[in-house]
Amino acid sequence: MKSFVTISWDEKSDSVLLIDQTRLPLSCQIIQCRTVDRLITAIRRLEVRGAPALGIAGAYGVALASISIRESNFPRYVHMVRASALNIGNARPTAINLSWGVHRVLAMAEKHADSIEEYRQIALHEAQKVAEEDMAACHALGDYGAALLPDTGTVLTHCNAGALACREWGTALGVVRSAVAAGKNISVIACETRPLLQGARLTSWELKRDEIPVTVIPDSAAAYLMRKEKIDCIIVGADRITRDAVFNKVGTYMHALCAKSHEIPFYVAAPSSTFDSMHYESEIEIEERERDEVARISGHVIVPDGVPVRNPAFDATPFSLVTALITDHGIIKPASDWIQIAEIHRII
Amino acid sequence: MKSFVTISWDEKSDSVLLIDQTRLPLSCQIIQCRTVDRLITAIRRLEVRGAPALGIAGAYGVALASISIRESNFPRYVHMVRASALNIGNARPTAINLSWGVHRVLAMAEKHADSIEEYRQIALHEAQKVAEEDMAACHALGDYGAALLPDTGTVLTHCNAGALACREWGTALGVVRSAVAAGKNISVIACETRPLLQGARLTSWELKRDEIPVTVIPDSAAAYLMRKEKIDCIIVGADRITRDAVFNKVGTYMHALCAKSHEIPFYVAAPSSTFDSMHYESEIEIEERERDEVARISGHVIVPDGVPVRNPAFDATPFSLVTALITDHGIIKPASDWIQIAEIHRII
Repeated sequence: MKSFVTISWDEKSDSVLLIDQTRLPLSCQIIQCRTVDRLITAIRRLEVRGAPALGIAGAYGVALASISIRESNFPRYVHMVRASALNIGNARPTAINLSWGVHRVLAMAEKHADSIEEYRQIALHEAQKVAEEDMAACHALGDYGAALLPDTGTVLTHCNAGALACREWGTALGVVRSAVAAGKNISVIACETRPLLQGARLTSWELKRDEIPVTVIPDSAAAYLMRKEKIDCIIVGADRITRDAVFNKVGTYMHALCAKSHEIPFYVAAPSSTFDSMHYESEIEIEERERDEVARISGHVIVPDGVPVRNPAFDATPFSLVTALITDHGIIKPASDWIQIAEIHRII
Repeated sequence: MKSFVTISWDEKSDSVLLIDQTRLPLSCQIIQCRTVDRLITAIRRLEVRGAPALGIAGAYGVALASISIRESNFPRYVHMVRASALNIGNARPTAINLSWGVHRVLAMAEKHADSIEEYRQIALHEAQKVAEEDMAACHALGDYGAALLPDTGTVLTHCNAGALACREWGTALGVVRSAVAAGKNISVIACETRPLLQGARLTSWELKRDEIPVTVIPDSAAAYLMRKEKIDCIIVGADRITRDAVFNKVGTYMHALCAKSHEIPFYVAAPSSTFDSMHYESEIEIEERERDEVARISGHVIVPDGVPVRNPAFDATPFSLVTALITDHGIIKPASDWIQIAEIHRII
């Protein structure tokens, strides 16, 4: 498969390099974030998106802050990096990986560094570790998940939980890639994923690049295909897994309900950095994004002026609708294996 | 309420006038169809759409054919009008109203006309009757349906089953208008309805015009709102009601499944011209429309070239998911009132 790296650290220029996901599939351009502000803008604009990739962005963000802050007094320096890091962590509220990435690097640097120079070295080293571990986690969960797929079959997915949502390989699409690498013959149905069309634009782009058969459908055609055609399973990613529910791109809950009605297995593929042992569903804010993401497409008005729009970016799917969680620690049945979930929660 | 007429006959020019629904909400322009070919183009392009409006278009189409065909031999004339009429009836396959409107006018004129002049008069008169009856049916089913709504509440709808899908008033939105006219305080959630965005563009436009509160959401956010907020019922229109299922815009089935899971009543509002007593679901073709309706938005590419797209325009919802059919003959519970459905089938 033709690998690419979605997010990486450029050692020559001390900056974060990102594939600009708002321009795909028309062009594949790299954004260079030399400042924390530019990185926060990239996160808010969804130039970088996908929970694991946001975890890496958060980690690299702390490294970027540690390098760009000019302050010679070490306690003041630590305080300033922390303030900057918290801004990164708050850039988007729902995906836990972003603040997880920030806090992991921050904690490591604050614990072990005794000087500004050490702080910078530790922060960058830990951020690189986050990126490498993400790749390893995707391959691990990909291999666990691949065993669940038939030798020949069709997987339906929503949004993009692929290489573009991680460093590389992917979570939901990592499972597909691992199955294909193991010789299985897997086709993918990609729901286009309104409003920002990550399925139509990103999932199709990266699977086509790897020559894995992919067909795009409107989100609302998924239940029709579940009823009329053979869909072996649904696999999605996750932005946060609380003690009782999976938060993921809006539409995930609808697919899970429809899968249940058709007795189609519904899998969620996510690394352990996505688990949030501290919270229940009711405590998590669902990000509502701006009106124009729905009301305009490529600048073209589709909703009359003055008509309000709701634009929740995520929804929550209760564990009762999830057949299994595919994690880098193995396959977990959330309805019955709650002790294992608690163990994953403790691990992270 | 500010009434407008979606489709009408212009006596001065012997042509069919249509609101061009592909240009809404940005501009409200009238298309004048002076030829059958132009009318067929309008039907194929969805410049006119919505099952009841297609019934009227089919009826007016026969009148248009009867006037525009130049042939002095009466048997040959009848044959030529019939050939032209069948082309109109076949312009789109799923909505039954189109061929129903064509055949009703054709049958009346062929039965009663003894001359070309008489044929033209009878065809136009019958077509006008189809249009007037459609309006009466919308008001009748609107009043029946309004009684099902609470004094204050929220209705979720999909696609556009409004005045723009009929001559005026509407089916699903006719129920909302009748409820509002009766003093009820009803808000509407309009699913945007990919790919052609009839909910975002048309439902919002016509409800805003009537000052009925409307909020647009992505289709995939409907289940989220059913779970998290108060939705009193779902009301959609229909393109064809067979002996076992409701055919309507793709996404309807998904909403019906999700409504069932949340114990929210799911209503289908349709005039008796939408009933098809001759067929079961399995016998009806679902129109698959062209790739670019999904793959491009306003000319802008959202799916990479070479990636296939599925674009079913409709889906089928089995009667087991439909709480009630709201018809111009009253409220029918399809799971138990099958004799009444058979009666409606016999009426038409």
